[in-house]
This record gives sequence, C-alpha cells and structure tokens, in this order.
Amino acid sequence: MPVGLTGLPMLHPVPGIRLGTTQAHIRKPDRRDLVVIACAPGTRAAAVFTKNRFCAAPVVVAREHLSQSAPRALLINTGFANAGTGESGLVDARASCTALARVLKCQPHEILPFSTGVIGERLPVDRLTAGLPACLAALNESGWGEAAQGIMTTDTVPKGASRRLTLDGKIVTVTGIAKGAGMIRPDMATMLAFVATDAVVSASALQACLNAAVNMSFNRITVDGDTSTNDACLLLATGKAGNGEIRDASGDAYAVLARAVAEVCAGLAQAIVRDAEGITKFITLEVRGGASESDCLEVAYTIAHSPLVKTAFFASDPNWGRILAAVGRAPIARLDVGKVSIHLENVCVVRNGGVAADYTETAGRDVMRRSEIHVRVDLGAGSAGATVWTSDLSHDYVRINAEYRT
Amino acid sequence: MPVGLTGLPMLHPVPGIRLGTTQAHIRKPDRRDLVVIACAPGTRAAAVFTKNRFCAAPVVVAREHLSQSAPRALLINTGFANAGTGESGLVDARASCTALARVLKCQPHEILPFSTGVIGERLPVDRLTAGLPACLAALNESGWGEAAQGIMTTDTVPKGASRRLTLDGKIVTVTGIAKGAGMIRPDMATMLAFVATDAVVSASALQACLNAAVNMSFNRITVDGDTSTNDACLLLATGKAGNGEIRDASGDAYAVLARAVAEVCAGLAQAIVRDAEGITKFITLEVRGGASESDCLEVAYTIAHSPLVKTAFFASDPNWGRILAAVGRAPIARLDVGKVSIHLENVCVVRNGGVAADYTETAGRDVMRRSEIHVRVDLGAGSAGATVWTSDLSHDYVRINAEYRT
Repeated sequence: MPVGLTGLPMLHPVPGIRLGTTQAHIRKPDRRDLVVIACAPGTRAAAVFTKNRFCAAPVVVAREHLSQSAPRALLINTGFANAGTGESGLVDARASCTALARVLKCQPHEILPFSTGVIGERLPVDRLTAGLPACLAALNESGWGEAAQGIMTTDTVPKGASRRLTLDGKIVTVTGIAKGAGMIRPDMATMLAFVATDAVVSASALQACLNAAVNMSFNRITVDGDTSTNDACLLLATGKAGNGEIRDASGDAYAVLARAVAEVCAGLAQAIVRDAEGITKFITLEVRGGASESDCLEVAYTIAHSPLVKTAFFASDPNWGRILAAVGRAPIARLDVGKVSIHLENVCVVRNGGVAADYTETAGRDVMRRSEIHVRVDLGAGSAGATVWTSDLSHDYVRINAEYRT
Repeated sequence: MPVGLTGLPMLHPVPGIRLGTTQAHIRKPDRRDLVVIACAPGTRAAAVFTKNRFCAAPVVVAREHLSQSAPRALLINTGFANAGTGESGLVDARASCTALARVLKCQPHEILPFSTGVIGERLPVDRLTAGLPACLAALNESGWGEAAQGIMTTDTVPKGASRRLTLDGKIVTVTGIAKGAGMIRPDMATMLAFVATDAVVSASALQACLNAAVNMSFNRITVDGDTSTNDACLLLATGKAGNGEIRDASGDAYAVLARAVAEVCAGLAQAIVRDAEGITKFITLEVRGGASESDCLEVAYTIAHSPLVKTAFFASDPNWGRILAAVGRAPIARLDVGKVSIHLENVCVVRNGGVAADYTETAGRDVMRRSEIHVRVDLGAGSAGATVWTSDLSHDYVRINAEYRT
C-alpha cells in the first residue's frame, strides 16, 4: 500500500499537449499499456536519460532523434523494456517510431520512443503498431490521468503533479506524470517522467530548468539502489501561453518557471518512493552539518541503502545502532564520530557519537511506528546539507521482486 | 537453512591454545555466550579490525592492548556488541579485561576483549565476570567446537576450519573458528574470527600472512553490504611446533604457512556466507577480463549488493537483465558494453552485450534452481579478475532482521 498517496491530484491540461492511451495487449491483457503524447508544432524538448551503460534501445533512439529535431510525439509502452536486446532492439524501436510517424504524417525522427518493463525480451512491434489507431483516436488535452495509468508497471497507483503560475500576466501550466516503484536510485531511477508546460522558453533554458529539477528530485530518491536501463525524464514546452520568451537560465520569469518545474518533479519523485515496492514507511533522510553536500549525500545514501536500517524501519524497531553503523562506514574523507548526532523526528537518540542520556526506547518506538518518519543526522563538521527520500524493506518487497516475471 | 554446510569439520587442537566456554546468561538464558581463549606464554598475535568509524569499545581496547604486549587471553562475549556505548562502553570493556586478568594473574593489557550482538546497550559486566570461573574450569586444547558455538549470534551453525602442514619435518596446525551471518560486507564483515597456529613465526610475518588471507577471504564476501562496528580477525601463533622460525613474508616455509592460513580463512569466510541470514542460494560471482582487479571487484560488488539480483536468485528466476543492469551501473571508469558476456554456470546468457543467440529460458532456469550457482561476467577489457561470494535475498532475511531485537 502506498504511503500518503491518495489518487491523482488535479492535473491541469497543457495547451498544445494531447495524450491518448489504450490497451494494446503488449504483455498482459486488460491493462492500459500504450500511450501517445502528441505535441503541437513548435514544441521544444529537454531530456535527461539513465546513466546506466546498458541503456535500452529506446533510450539510444530517443537520444538520437532528439539530436535531429524537436519531437512531434512521444510513444510509450509498458510490459517490455526493450533493453538488453542488442541490434534487434534498435530495429524494433525504430520500427515503432516509423509506424507512428506514418500515421501522424511526420518523420520517424520526430517520434521519441520509451519502453518500460521486463528486460531482455523483444518488443512485440506488431501488437504495438496495432494499438496505435486507438491511441490516436483517444488523443485529448485531458488525457493526463489515463496516460499516468498507461505507463505503470509495478506501480500500484498512477502518479501526477501539476502547478499553475503567472508569467507576464498569462496563466502558465506545468503538469507531469511519472512511473516507477522499484529499481529506483539516483542518477535516475527506474522511472519515466513526462512533464510539459505551455511556457514560451528557449531550448537551453528548458534544459537548465530540467537539470536543476531532476537533481533535487529524481536524483534524491532511492528504493533499492538499482539504476535502470530505461530511465528518462522529458520536459516539453509548447509555447502556447503567450508569455515573453524566457531566453536563458536567469531572471525572475525563469526562476518562477524553474520553481514550478522543480515542485512538479519533487512531487512525482516523492510519489515514486511513496509507492515503492512493498513500502510501509516513507523515510526522509536529512543529513546536515557536513563539510560538503556530497559528503551529506554519501552518508544519506549509505543509510538509505542499508538493508539492516530498512528492515528496522519495517519492524518499527528504533535500532539506531544500525543507523550509526551506516554513518560510520559511509565513504567520506573525514568523520569525527564524537560530533555525530541523530534525531528520529524530534527525539534525540544519539548525541556526541553515543546514545543520548535522555533517550528512551519508548520514545524511539513511538516515532518508528509512524508511516512517515523524518531522520536527521548532524555530522558536526560544517554547514552543508542534503535530503534523500527512501522506503523501508518489507516482506512484500521480496515477494514482488521474486514474483515479477511469473 | 545454511547452504552446503554440514556441521563442523575436524578441528585439530593447536598446542599452546586452550579454549573454555560457558553459559553466562549475558543476554539470553540457555546458550553458550562467553568464551576465553588462553594462549601459552610467548604467543604472538596479528589482527585486523573493522574499518567502521564507529568501532565498538572492545575494538578500541583490543587495539590499545595489542600495541602494548602480546595477549595471554582473549575474552569473547555474545549478546551485546558494546558498540555505540560511548565512555561507559570503554569502562565496561576495561573492567572485563581487569576481571579476567585478576584470575589469570596477568596484566589487564594482556587480555583482548571482543563483543558481538545488539548495538547500543551496555555490557552486563557483572554477569560476564560471574561466568569467568566456569570458562576457566573448561579450558582445554579440544575446546574449539564449543567455542565456535559460544561466539554465535544469528548464526544457525558453528563455523570452523582446520589444516595440517609440515614445516622442517614438524607437523604444524592451523585451526580457526568464526561467527557471522548478517551485516556482512567487505572491509570486514559482522564477524569475529579467531585463528591459531603453533608455527614458529615472527610477528611481522604473522601479520603479513593474516593481511593476505583476510584480503582474499573475509574481504571477498558480502551478504547485505553492511559493515559492522565490531569486526575482528585474530591470528595467534604459539610457536610450539618447533619449526625453524619464519622471519619474514618470503621463502617456501612462509608460503606454505600462508596458504594454509588463507585456506582456513577462506573456509571460514565462505561458511559465513553459506549461513547468511535467510540464505537459500550460495552465489559465487567471478568477474574477469577486467582492466584491473579493482574494476572487477566494483562490478562484482555492484551485482552482489543489488536487491533485484538477489531476489531473482531467491526466486530461481534467470532474470539476467538485472545482472546486466547492475554491470551497467557499476562505478568503473570504462565499460564497453558490446564486449560483456555473462555465464550462469556453463550457460552463456549474454554475449557481446546482448542476449546470446543460443540461450534458452529453460537452460537458465535449470541453473537458477541449484542451491550453489557460479556466475561469470567477462568484461572483455583486460586480464584482471576477482571473485566474491554472496547470498540471495529471501523472505527470511527480512523476517530475521525485522525481528532481531524482539
């Protein structure tokens, strides 16, 4: 059961973006598994992709197509990731783009393909192609909710976020959807995220905006430390809002847009963790007092990736010794253990490197029973800080990942 | 259930080493939890300790005592790790040493303390002290088996290994015991290991021998990526065998002794993984064709620490895409994905970075059903190699670690 997620919020349409979703029986019957996102002419795009060296065929093709022109449409399937499929995977990804381009009467390189699902099996291009007419017939500006469902794999709930802002007196919308529940860690997660705005913004400012937002959202979450082969985050800008063009990554208008994009991405990223496979606890890990932000991140991720810490959260066990041990092995250059303190919410459990004199097991257990827990580690070494969001490790995580392909 | 472990092997006594074990009710009744290992005068010692910055009080004290003199006895308790206990933890560790020194009529710095168990709670020095007479009464050269039981925590079976060799026509023995089942990863695991020999060997050659053995055994295993606060590995040499002294880390005699110590350590290290918490599969990860040994180790550990890979092993699912994805995100400088191959035993699943043409799911599944699986990854980049041993991630791992303190 997801933690603190109750259905999709209001997803405001973005003028110039139409979405169509259908059941194409890609891998399983009776589920939405094919989505087309059509962009008005003139739409600009920014993108961030997985850093996994084994990036999937659609990632290779999407990167290639983006370098040639702006996209007219995005084509997304679930069921198969088309990763680890070698040359035939590239052939399949290109064939899918060609099929959609033929119907939309555009060039294949104006289509960006995205796939998510099982690795290592070929994409059923025939079934995908057969599903395209239904997708196109369904295209409409209010299709965000159905599309959010259409990109799900092990997700239990669809994920979306939306903001409205004003630029030059014009109402501007930023709306996004995402999928992902496991194989989630920084440098992009096993996730796809599609965010769009109708702001008028240059391609370079759009990319800067996305980079900044991804760095503080999708690159700050982890479920199991695994980075997928297919991660992608797209930010589209249709330019329909009529504001004065945001030319570069500076100025008030850029800042306002960037903040809205960052909020949408943070909402989507946290929703992914809240729906993490087998989650029972949503954990915010704040590390501060570090000599550098990267030190704080190393400590935060060492805690977040510790199976022992994660099982203790699952058990509502205030076993702070496991957190302490994780801090102690984090790969940072210097650590003065005598200055480390740890809080579970407002309960101080460790002070000056040892158990706090006023700490009681009862107080710790009360915090650990909550479904959302804020952990604060102070390294006592400087003024840098970083926050990471993660989940616990439960029986259901093992069950879901053991049964995934059966 | 441990994989491929069937009780203790024959543990040859080591002249000059006597072991005594008792039930001291340190944390739980009715279990052996206190061990004294007494060394003949003139015994030399080498040691390797945890690299965790939050090292436990007994580790601090043992390091300090070793720097002052050779040990006359080792004092080991389970139940409480005496870690994260600050100043009072140091007081307790010293008090334990003083209590044993008083009975043995030696100096407190001739006692080395070791603790394993729950972090963050104080050591019950009174109960420990009360157990000492029974330990001393039980001291005998054949006490290895009982001592192996007396140092267990979540271990389900005692662990030991023993070798005999000949030096200068004299029979020399190397015997060791170890504990550890979770919180296991390189840079020492949550483990204690005590190995002894009666060889005549200099202190420096003894330390070289231990360093080499630990590097290829305890530093090549991982269960869950967590490094404990209490890890320690001791190598004692009583000098009773009468061989000509091995003065430094060279020559045939050194090589013969070093190999025996390495074999004993490898046996103990693999036994720890075979008894890993919740294990159903014992996995050997061999990475070869690397540009360097460290590249191979990075790739091996990235695979070994992936919860998705580990749950796939648990499920007997030949989901090689997860192995491929782990290789792809390993933090090494260069990876030519087109040259990577992966074998499950003798079944080639990935060749040139994609699924092998002759691979069948049936062949993969047949291998994955085994309880011991050899995975070979070839990076196609050079001639270096490294091997790491690990376990799968099962429901029982979560259960054991969620319930540990209850």
